[in-house]
Amino acid sequence: MRTVTYGAACSLDGFIARPDGSVDWLIFTADVSAVMTAFWKDTDTMLMGRKTWDFAAAQTKGGGTGFGKIETYVFSRTLTADPHPDVRLVREDAGAFVRALKARPGKGICVMSGGNFAASLFAAGVIDEVRLNVHPVLLGAGIPLFTDPGTQVNLTLTECRPMKRDCLLLSYRVAPPKTRRRRGQATEH
Amino acid sequence: MRTVTYGAACSLDGFIARPDGSVDWLIFTADVSAVMTAFWKDTDTMLMGRKTWDFAAAQTKGGGTGFGKIETYVFSRTLTADPHPDVRLVREDAGAFVRALKARPGKGICVMSGGNFAASLFAAGVIDEVRLNVHPVLLGAGIPLFTDPGTQVNLTLTECRPMKRDCLLLSYRVAPPKTRRRRGQATEH
Repeated sequence: MRTVTYGAACSLDGFIARPDGSVDWLIFTADVSAVMTAFWKDTDTMLMGRKTWDFAAAQTKGGGTGFGKIETYVFSRTLTADPHPDVRLVREDAGAFVRALKARPGKGICVMSGGNFAASLFAAGVIDEVRLNVHPVLLGAGIPLFTDPGTQVNLTLTECRPMKRDCLLLSYRVAPPKTRRRRGQATEH
Repeated sequence: MRTVTYGAACSLDGFIARPDGSVDWLIFTADVSAVMTAFWKDTDTMLMGRKTWDFAAAQTKGGGTGFGKIETYVFSRTLTADPHPDVRLVREDAGAFVRALKARPGKGICVMSGGNFAASLFAAGVIDEVRLNVHPVLLGAGIPLFTDPGTQVNLTLTECRPMKRDCLLLSYRVAPPKTRRRRGQATEH
């Protein structure tokens, strides 16, 4: 079964971008680059929500450079066609789609997203890992890393690595949804 | 000058309690207890917002056991008198009050708070340290650890220590408010 990783660089107060989408606060260092290079070597598929796609497309002026190298899916109920020759639109249920994708042979699957799309995948129970590059800053406001999946998600800390310039790489494994659910919620059987 | 520490146990998605205030998800281990004991030995003053006071008072059924051992201040514009014989009400500007307190001789000062009161102290530039015990869970919703102080707060990572049961102690030093302000905001002179 392939591993689905929700990965992001974030502020300590849990934002992946400022309110206007800007990421001028991101710190790029050689040690993080090495980690990312290793990560992408083991990843062949990328999932994104429509808003993240819009942002990525704007960044590359719609050219989508590099999308051909990695299987890319954009999840949207408002788009009606593939937004780019190298990018597939998915309109069906995200959880079911990702579950089927995981069962197919392949490398790791990466979720590039703000909190909303990630929350829908947490709710569907298809995310296996959370990998964060926590930056030493409180932004105060912005696009959230996490939004409410409607259920408690238990984790296991698998890595904690201080990087240059006060960044911190954290990796968590998502625990199977079993023992603890949010109060007042039915337990899954 | 005394050190003001904003300290909390929190979920990875930045909550200090569930929406109803409950903290049944907190993990108590001997290694964290040892860290807390050392911390309280160097701390003689506690600051809290009114909501945190209400919660603490309810927990101790108004008895306030232990408040006599530590100088305790509750900040509120709605309270009109000290809420407990061992607890002082502060109605004046929190930033100015804490600045004066820091200049007096004494040990460390601890901020026990949800994000709102802490944000007012971040905005006033009187918090020196952030110390978190990050728990391996996404709660999805609850009382936030951080709310928007209206300005960017830059930090320096001073400690990162994995604890038992996948908890993670993080300590940050607050950088002086100088170089980077949020976009569109005036720079302080």
